[in-house]
Amino acid sequence: MISSDKVNGTAVYSRAGEQIGTIDHLSIDKTTGKVAYAVMGFGGFLGFGEDHHPISWGKLSYDTGLGGYVTDITSEQLEGAPARKDDWYRDRDWEARTHDYYGVPSYWI
Amino acid sequence: MISSDKVNGTAVYSRAGEQIGTIDHLSIDKTTGKVAYAVMGFGGFLGFGEDHHPISWGKLSYDTGLGGYVTDITSEQLEGAPARKDDWYRDRDWEARTHDYYGVPSYWI
Repeated sequence: MISSDKVNGTAVYSRAGEQIGTIDHLSIDKTTGKVAYAVMGFGGFLGFGEDHHPISWGKLSYDTGLGGYVTDITSEQLEGAPARKDDWYRDRDWEARTHDYYGVPSYWI
Repeated sequence: MISSDKVNGTAVYSRAGEQIGTIDHLSIDKTTGKVAYAVMGFGGFLGFGEDHHPISWGKLSYDTGLGGYVTDITSEQLEGAPARKDDWYRDRDWEARTHDYYGVPSYWI
């Protein structure tokens, strides 16, 4: 069991063990009660200019040794991901393309 | 979609519209990625003596008018709920009895 207050701010590492960002918050699907996305924060300074990017929860696994999450998503993949609008979280079309892009099953079926 | 950082600290109301507590954090099942419990905080003063109690996520619904969650669980029901140990979140026996007590389907099947 994972506590939501222990997730926000947790580091996310690449398969090579390099930190690529932190988890800003989780996005939970109201209907199914499933965690749909971990919204990651990258770069920025004191919160200014930080870029956020939602990735599928299924692409993260916790590594007790590193004390953070590991993902096989690369920086290149993140940069090439489908562009999103501000209301991405209710844009089922963008969601479908994104899940397809990362090769993960959709959480809403 | 619900943002995890907008859940912690949100008020929980009874069907009568009376505030009975706040959400302290969510407990997420690692395997299914589903929110299993909302751990509620009751009473206490500046964090001292606050009692925590996990309730099934399925027993909460969001009320935009109240700006918080509503549950049909009563204070009496909470007080009479199956007693739990510190490691309740990995005590499948306690979980089964609790879901049965509140009449909600188990999240792990």
